[in-house]
Amino acid sequence: MEAEKKGKSSAAYPMNSGEGPYSYAKTSSSQRVVIDFIKELMNKEIEEKLDMGIISTSPPNPFCIADLGCSVGPNTFSAVKNIIEAVELKCQTSQGITASSKLLLPEFQVFFNDHTSNDFNMLFKSLPVNRRYYALGVPGSFYGRIFPEASLHFVHSSFALHWLSQVPKEVTDKSSPAWNKGRVHYANSGDEVVRAYKAQYEKDMEQFLQARAQEMVCGGLMVLIILGITDGIRHSEAGGNRGFDLVGSCLMDLVKKGIVREENVDSFNIPTYLMTTQEFEAAVRQNGSFGIERMEVLPHVKVNGVSLNAQQVTFCVRSTLGELIKQEFGEDIVDQLFELYLEKLEEIHPSSVAETEKTLSFLVVLKRKPISH
Amino acid sequence: MEAEKKGKSSAAYPMNSGEGPYSYAKTSSSQRVVIDFIKELMNKEIEEKLDMGIISTSPPNPFCIADLGCSVGPNTFSAVKNIIEAVELKCQTSQGITASSKLLLPEFQVFFNDHTSNDFNMLFKSLPVNRRYYALGVPGSFYGRIFPEASLHFVHSSFALHWLSQVPKEVTDKSSPAWNKGRVHYANSGDEVVRAYKAQYEKDMEQFLQARAQEMVCGGLMVLIILGITDGIRHSEAGGNRGFDLVGSCLMDLVKKGIVREENVDSFNIPTYLMTTQEFEAAVRQNGSFGIERMEVLPHVKVNGVSLNAQQVTFCVRSTLGELIKQEFGEDIVDQLFELYLEKLEEIHPSSVAETEKTLSFLVVLKRKPISH
Repeated sequence: MEAEKKGKSSAAYPMNSGEGPYSYAKTSSSQRVVIDFIKELMNKEIEEKLDMGIISTSPPNPFCIADLGCSVGPNTFSAVKNIIEAVELKCQTSQGITASSKLLLPEFQVFFNDHTSNDFNMLFKSLPVNRRYYALGVPGSFYGRIFPEASLHFVHSSFALHWLSQVPKEVTDKSSPAWNKGRVHYANSGDEVVRAYKAQYEKDMEQFLQARAQEMVCGGLMVLIILGITDGIRHSEAGGNRGFDLVGSCLMDLVKKGIVREENVDSFNIPTYLMTTQEFEAAVRQNGSFGIERMEVLPHVKVNGVSLNAQQVTFCVRSTLGELIKQEFGEDIVDQLFELYLEKLEEIHPSSVAETEKTLSFLVVLKRKPISH
Repeated sequence: MEAEKKGKSSAAYPMNSGEGPYSYAKTSSSQRVVIDFIKELMNKEIEEKLDMGIISTSPPNPFCIADLGCSVGPNTFSAVKNIIEAVELKCQTSQGITASSKLLLPEFQVFFNDHTSNDFNMLFKSLPVNRRYYALGVPGSFYGRIFPEASLHFVHSSFALHWLSQVPKEVTDKSSPAWNKGRVHYANSGDEVVRAYKAQYEKDMEQFLQARAQEMVCGGLMVLIILGITDGIRHSEAGGNRGFDLVGSCLMDLVKKGIVREENVDSFNIPTYLMTTQEFEAAVRQNGSFGIERMEVLPHVKVNGVSLNAQQVTFCVRSTLGELIKQEFGEDIVDQLFELYLEKLEEIHPSSVAETEKTLSFLVVLKRKPISH
């Protein structure tokens, strides 16, 4: 509980500065900017919060790092490099290294995790040649157990936790009041649909925290970068959600043209949920195994200092949803759908989809509490 | 040294029964037969030779198994299942389990290793759904370090060690007496070429054993199934080698037809070497970190009790070499090459390539010795 209090009392909630990239969260360049920004922040956290007691510099005790939802790189490699450098720096400082003394470092083992459908072949081929760690791929959902007990010292996850483990069942159930007819996301839907998404989020987050509590050593740190939403606003006001809603509206246009079947749109839903920092905090408290060491809304970043135009936004949404849509509706409609998307987006202002003060990215540092008996 | 003596003194060298599948070693069905055959043998070895001291049934100490050169399955999954069942049986026996007592088992973590170019995506998608272990992929050559120190309890490798880490440099060097002009393998080449291949094998095997000595816990077991050659015969007499030689002769035919450039055949060499059991023993002794617990030539197996016909042999050779040839000569010639191969093979008897008493498969059980200080 001490760690949690400490986290709460630190001045780490500058929510009003909150603004984040959303529908282009999955694109590499904007994420990269965020990763660089948080590098210093993470360095500082590792320096101050990582217990030297969990770092062993004599084998057999490698320092084990997992990146959950790593995708194919290169961002995961940068993040891992930053973490390792910070841990090494911490070792150096704590050993009071002088020119004549020898620095003792642990071996590092890095677990790259993502869904089984992730392109691990590409990930493995892009691994940095001069890496100083043993690299492994771990296929499977991070909403379940994917590692042995107490085997991880550091967990990282960036822009992955807004993906739910599945579409909430009720929203595809015709007999449920939460049936999401004619829409593909919860943001502009009735309260029943929003509640179903929120319930799925809560269940997923509890499973996430419970699995990590079992897999991490006591004192281990978890750094999460989360795409969320400002407290107290409606989900329909978030730019990224609007972008998804526009996909739904384009699909309905294709229904009218007879290209897509209406039942398919009714049964298709995008499994993402934007949580507020308050919702996240509640989940951590409910779980009880972690203390919040830090929680900070990240400043808004623009790629190269400019806003994205309609084409770029369309590209980002397509790179995020293209595969899902292909699976559901077939490859043939994808081009047509995103041509329509671009047209519609050019009619409205693309920034209303790409950027808004209502979405935000936040960074959280959690520490695994000692197990109480 | 004790373990080594023990291995030597056991009646485990029935070399005269030796005969093995070769050019179809990479095909699934014949390997599968061998894997089933050795299942019982491995069970017995694990029961008798695995130290209970290295098995911890309380976390955080998973029992870590690596399969080196795993390819894409399904054989690797069968092998892993067999190993885990044998270890569980050993736990059960040693705990003297009765109906009323609870069996304590370790968590299992399984590391599937192969080259970075292996299709890990396919491997991950084929993972058994009801597996009782945490699965990971480890990209990289097993001739180097791929795991942290003292992190593995059991290592398995089946039909992978006859692949060298690389083509020996001298055989592609025009100025060397070992230059392998006009041939693609060492078997029918001059002594210089054979020596260069053998030297590469020795270097590779030393690196293999040294890396494993560092990665395995003391008392850990390593089970290797190796495609080799009977002691004392010429490499050119081995059926599988003849099959490779025939590839060389077909390529030279394509040179005559102007389809393939002669320099390309001169510089292309197949990086495999068939070791004898004596050569393997010498490498283990030279390395010094492992005792030989068992060494046994596997009985010859025929798929469904019949010999392979020319078409099947061609298919097997193609599945083994197709990718290498594509990389070297381009995709266009592959079909043509193996049509020619089939023609030539039909002229001679396919069994002279597919089967012979001169090649053999042998199983070795090594135990990591205690580290002497």
